Amino acid sequence: MSRINGQVRIVGAGLLGTSLGLALVKKGIDVILSDTSRASQALAVDYGAGRTPQAEDSPVLIVVCVPPDHTASVVSAELAAFPNAFVTDVASVKQSVLRELQHSGVGLSKYVGSHPMAGRERSGAVAGRADLFIGRPWVVVPHELSEAAGVDLVTDLALEVGAVPTIMEPIEHDHAVAAVSHVPQLVSSLLAARLLSTSAQEISLAGQGLRDTTRIAASDPGLWVQILSANAGQVAPVLKDLATDLDAVIAALSHIDAGGSLATISRTIESGNRGVERIPGKHGGGHANYATVVAMIDDKPGELARLLTEIGQIGINLEDLKLEHSPGAQIGLVELSVLPEAEAKLIADLTSLGWRLA
Amino acid sequence: MSRINGQVRIVGAGLLGTSLGLALVKKGIDVILSDTSRASQALAVDYGAGRTPQAEDSPVLIVVCVPPDHTASVVSAELAAFPNAFVTDVASVKQSVLRELQHSGVGLSKYVGSHPMAGRERSGAVAGRADLFIGRPWVVVPHELSEAAGVDLVTDLALEVGAVPTIMEPIEHDHAVAAVSHVPQLVSSLLAARLLSTSAQEISLAGQGLRDTTRIAASDPGLWVQILSANAGQVAPVLKDLATDLDAVIAALSHIDAGGSLATISRTIESGNRGVERIPGKHGGGHANYATVVAMIDDKPGELARLLTEIGQIGINLEDLKLEHSPGAQIGLVELSVLPEAEAKLIADLTSLGWRLA
Repeated sequence: MSRINGQVRIVGAGLLGTSLGLALVKKGIDVILSDTSRASQALAVDYGAGRTPQAEDSPVLIVVCVPPDHTASVVSAELAAFPNAFVTDVASVKQSVLRELQHSGVGLSKYVGSHPMAGRERSGAVAGRADLFIGRPWVVVPHELSEAAGVDLVTDLALEVGAVPTIMEPIEHDHAVAAVSHVPQLVSSLLAARLLSTSAQEISLAGQGLRDTTRIAASDPGLWVQILSANAGQVAPVLKDLATDLDAVIAALSHIDAGGSLATISRTIESGNRGVERIPGKHGGGHANYATVVAMIDDKPGELARLLTEIGQIGINLEDLKLEHSPGAQIGLVELSVLPEAEAKLIADLTSLGWRLA
Repeated sequence: MSRINGQVRIVGAGLLGTSLGLALVKKGIDVILSDTSRASQALAVDYGAGRTPQAEDSPVLIVVCVPPDHTASVVSAELAAFPNAFVTDVASVKQSVLRELQHSGVGLSKYVGSHPMAGRERSGAVAGRADLFIGRPWVVVPHELSEAAGVDLVTDLALEVGAVPTIMEPIEHDHAVAAVSHVPQLVSSLLAARLLSTSAQEISLAGQGLRDTTRIAASDPGLWVQILSANAGQVAPVLKDLATDLDAVIAALSHIDAGGSLATISRTIESGNRGVERIPGKHGGGHANYATVVAMIDDKPGELARLLTEIGQIGINLEDLKLEHSPGAQIGLVELSVLPEAEAKLIADLTSLGWRLA
C-alpha cells in the first residue's frame, strides 16, 4: 500500500540516508543503498536500511544524502546514470545547489530539491532511526524546469516516512532556514564562546536558561561551515540586523543614565517577547499557554514512572514534560505541562496521592 | 531541628518571598510576612507562607524580597527598624545595591547580600512553591563590614531551604551572573526579535533548536530593565566581545570566497563547542556524555507512564528525559538519556517489550 511504486536509490549512508532507508524498508519498498565508502554502505545494509546496488537496478526515485558541498556533483552524476529516474537531495541549502547544477549544463527536468528538517546531534549510519522524519517539516523545493510528476513523487516520499511536506521556492527556503536555523546556530555558538573566559566558580551558577540557549552550540563545525558558507547571502543580512540592535543595547548599557537608554533595553526584551510568541507550539497550533505543575521526585529508578503512572490513572494527558537538572542535588524536579482546565484536578489528585508539589 | 533559632521576617510577598516563606514554615520556623500591598500580604498569608507582622516581633533575620530598584531603600529601612536583626536581600545584582546602601550612611555590619539562583517564568505569590530553592545555587555575598555571624546565618538560610550556598564578593557575583544569566537573556531576546520579520510559512519550519535558544526571550521586560541597568557595567563588556566576534562572522559571510572566511566560521563554531563543554552537567559533575535512546509513543494519557514504568522495571535510571514536540503530528518522541553502560540493555529490553525505537 506504498505511495511509491518502484525502487528508491539512496546515495550516501550517513544519518539521513540510513534513516530514510530504514523508514522505507519498513514500508516494504525496495531500497538500494550506495555510498562511496564500502564500509559505510555495508554497515547501513547490515542495519537493514536497504540492499547493495545491482547492475539491473532501475530506480524511480534517487535521494542524494551527501554533505552539502558534494550534493550538486552527485545529483549531476545520478541524473546522467539514471535518465528515467527523478532525483532529489536533502541538503539544508537549496539555491547554491541549484545554481551549481545549472552551471553544470545537465538537464534538470527530473530534479526536484528537498530538505527534511530532521537531524540529531549524533551523525553516521549508527545514529540512523526509522522515525527520524515523523512529524517533522519536509520542504519540497521545485525549480522552474521541475516536472510536476517529480514534485508529486518527492511529496509522496515525505508523506511515506511520516513527515509534513511544504512546497517552497529555493530563495524562500534559504531565507526561512537562515532565520529559524542558521542564525540561531551562529548566535548560540557566539554566546557559548563567552563561557571560555569564565571561572569554574562563575560557571557553577549556570541555570536552565544558559543550558537551553547554548545546547546547539555543541554542533559539528565541519558540517556547519558547509551550510553557512552555502547560505551566506541569506544569513549575513539577518546577522547585520542583529548587530545593529546589539550595538544599540551596548550603547545603552555603556551610558545607562542617558535619556532613552532604559527604553532601548525595554524595547529589546519586548521585541523578543513578541518574536518568541510567533513560534508555533505542539501539534502545529499557536503558542499554547499550558499550565505547569512541578513535582519533586527522588532520583532513583522508577520514581518518574510511578509519578506518570499515577497521572495516567488520573486520566490527564501531558502536553509536555521537562526534567530539570538539579546541580549538586540527588533529586529531580519534573515540570508537567497540561491544558489549563486540567491543572486544578492534577494538583488536587497528586497532592492527595502524597506527591510534593508547590 | 532548624538551623535558624528565632523569627524570620520576609519583606515582599512576590514569587521569591512567598516561596521562601512556604519553605521556612514547613521547617517549623516562625515566619513574618510583610508587603506594602495589603492584598499581596494577605494572599501570601492565606497561602501558608507566614503570618502578619505584630508590634512585638523580634526577628533574628530579615530577608528583603522586593524588586532590585527598591532593594537598597527597603534594606536601609529594615536595618533601622530592627537594629538587632541581620538583614539580607535576594536581588540578582549585588554591587549596585551595596553602593546605594553605602551612600545612604546606614550602618552595614548587620547586612549581608545574597542571591538565590531560582526563579520561574511566572511571578507573584500564586506562583510560589516551597521547593523553589532545592538544589539551586544560592550566592552569599558579604562585604568588608559584614559580621561573620551574619554570613553564617544567611548560609544557614540557604541550607535550610535546600539550596547550595556559595560565597562570592559583590564584583565576582555580578561578573558571574552577567556571563551565565544577563548576557544569555539579551542575546536570546535579540535573536527572538529577528522572528518578527519572518512569514508564518517560514516560521512553521521552526525546530527544537530555535525553541531552546529563544525560550527565555519570553521573560518580563519590567524586571529585566531593572536587572540589566543595575549590572550594565558587567554586561556591556561581554556584549562588546560578542559584537566583535559577530562582526568578524558577518564580514566572513559577506566575503565568503575571501581567504580566511571559512576559517573564521569554523573557529566560531569550534569556540562554541568548547564553551558549552564548560557548563556543569547534572549532579554538579562535568558535561556528561550520556547515551540517548529515542522511543516513539502515542499521544494519549498513560503512554509515557507505561514506557517509564517498564524502564523502571528493567531497573535503569534515567539521567535525563526530553519529550520532543512533533508539529502537526499526534505522536511524541521521548529522548531517554542513560549512562553509556546501560544503553545496550535499555535498547534490547525495550525492543523485546514492543516499543518502537531506532
